[in-house]
Amino acid sequence: MVTTLVSQEQIGFALQLADQAAEIVRARFRQPFSFEAKSDASPVTEVDRAVEAACRASVAAERPQEGVIGEEYGPDRPQAAWQWIIDPIDGTRAFMAGRPTFGTLIALAFEGRPVLGVIDQPIVRDRWLGVLGRATLFNGVAAVVRPCAKLGDAVVGTTNPELFPVDEARRWRDLQAATGSRIYGGDCTIYGALASGWLDVVCERGLQLYDFAALVPVIEGAGGSMTDWSGAPLTTTSHGHVLAVGDRSLLPELLGLLAR
Amino acid sequence: MVTTLVSQEQIGFALQLADQAAEIVRARFRQPFSFEAKSDASPVTEVDRAVEAACRASVAAERPQEGVIGEEYGPDRPQAAWQWIIDPIDGTRAFMAGRPTFGTLIALAFEGRPVLGVIDQPIVRDRWLGVLGRATLFNGVAAVVRPCAKLGDAVVGTTNPELFPVDEARRWRDLQAATGSRIYGGDCTIYGALASGWLDVVCERGLQLYDFAALVPVIEGAGGSMTDWSGAPLTTTSHGHVLAVGDRSLLPELLGLLAR
Repeated sequence: MVTTLVSQEQIGFALQLADQAAEIVRARFRQPFSFEAKSDASPVTEVDRAVEAACRASVAAERPQEGVIGEEYGPDRPQAAWQWIIDPIDGTRAFMAGRPTFGTLIALAFEGRPVLGVIDQPIVRDRWLGVLGRATLFNGVAAVVRPCAKLGDAVVGTTNPELFPVDEARRWRDLQAATGSRIYGGDCTIYGALASGWLDVVCERGLQLYDFAALVPVIEGAGGSMTDWSGAPLTTTSHGHVLAVGDRSLLPELLGLLAR
Repeated sequence: MVTTLVSQEQIGFALQLADQAAEIVRARFRQPFSFEAKSDASPVTEVDRAVEAACRASVAAERPQEGVIGEEYGPDRPQAAWQWIIDPIDGTRAFMAGRPTFGTLIALAFEGRPVLGVIDQPIVRDRWLGVLGRATLFNGVAAVVRPCAKLGDAVVGTTNPELFPVDEARRWRDLQAATGSRIYGGDCTIYGALASGWLDVVCERGLQLYDFAALVPVIEGAGGSMTDWSGAPLTTTSHGHVLAVGDRSLLPELLGLLAR
C-alpha cells in the first residue's frame, strides 16, 4: 500500500493554481494577443507568460520553501525537494486556433518524482487530478481507464506526427499498422481522455518535463501506466519520449515495437 | 450583388435542426453507447444514427417538398431541387474519445450548389452559420477570415494525415514544407476556426458530400474561399479533395502545389 506524501494543503494549492490559470485563459481565449516564435520554433503568447508569472508569484507567496520549473522562465529555488512544474498552456497552437484541446498542466514532484498532477481545460471546464496513491478524479468523480485486450483494437492518440522526425517516422508507421485507429491533435487533454477510458494509448516523442510531469499521476491513479519508451518510470530527468496505456497488458508489445 | 435564394424560414429551420441535434448529442457525450465499423472502417455510433433519424423526421414533417442526403441512411426525395445534407456527427472518432472538436453539419443545397451551412459544436456551444450572399455568423456575430500575405507564415489544419494515402503523402509533405505550422485533429470545427480568422488554410482529401457541403457557405460568407484541388467550386457532385483558405491570395500557390 502506497501512502501518499502529498499533503491536503498541497492538493488544495494545486487546484488554486489551476483556478488562477483558468481565469486568465478564459478571459483571453479567442481574443487578440501578441505572440512570438521560441528558439525551437514553437509559439509562445503573452497569455502563456501571464499564466506562468501568476502561478510563480503564488508559489513564492504561499509555498516559499518549494521550487518552480516552468516552460517560459528559468527555475525558482532549484534546490528544494518539492518542485512545482508548470506548463501554462500545453497546446499553444490549439489555443491560438481557438481549439479547446489545450490545457494548463500543474505537477508537483518530490525528489524528482511526479507525485501530483492536474490537467485543466478551462473552456470546457474539464479537470483531471491525480495524486500518488489515490484514485484520479475527473471533475470530482473517479476516472478509470478502459480494458483493451488486443493492440489491434486500440485507439491511439498523438498530438503532431511531425514530432516523429524523418528518421523515426517508421516508429509511428509501425504503431499505425499495429493498432485499430489513430486520433491526432492530442495536446494534454488526450491523456485525460485516456485516464477516463475514452481511448487506449498515447505515444509521443520529444516532450519536455513540463509537458509530461503532470500526466503521470493522472494516468497511474486511473489504473493506467505511463513510462518512457524503454519502460522506465518518468522522472524530472527523463528524456520525454513517452508512452501511456490504459490497459497495462498492452505495454510489452508496445515497448517491443518502439524498441525495434 | 448576389441575392440569396435561401428563405428566412429555411434559415430558421436549419437552426432548429442544429438545436435538435445538439440536444441529443449533449445528452449522450461521454456516456456509454454502442458502435460499429462501417464498410470504410470508420466508426458509427447509435448517437450518429439517432441524430440523423431525428433530423430526417423533422424535414419530412416540416419541409416535405425538400430532400435529405445524410451520412448514415440513403437519400429521401432525391428529385427535389432543395436538398438538406446532414452529417450528424462529423468527427465520430473525436466524439467517441470525448473530444469537443466534432460537430453536426447541416447544409442546404439548391440545384446542386450548397447555399446554406451550419457547423455546430454542441459541447462548447460554438455555432457558425453561413448563407449565400450574407456575412457568416459565429454565435450571432459576424465572422471574418484573417489576412495571410505569405504561405510561409500560414497555419494549416487537417484532420488526419492518414487520409493522404502513401502515394499522395508527398502532397501533404509539400504543404508542410511550404507553410508555417500545422494543426492536426481538425474535424469540421477547424473550418469554423478558419472562418473566424484563427488559422489560414485547411486541406483535406477524400471527404464525402456530407463532410464538406456545410463548410462552403460558412467559409465564403466570412471572406474566404473553398474549392476542390483544381480550384473548381464544390457542388453535390464534387469528389471531396478540398482546400479552404482565409486569404484568397494564397489560392494560386496552394493549387499549384496540389497540382504537382
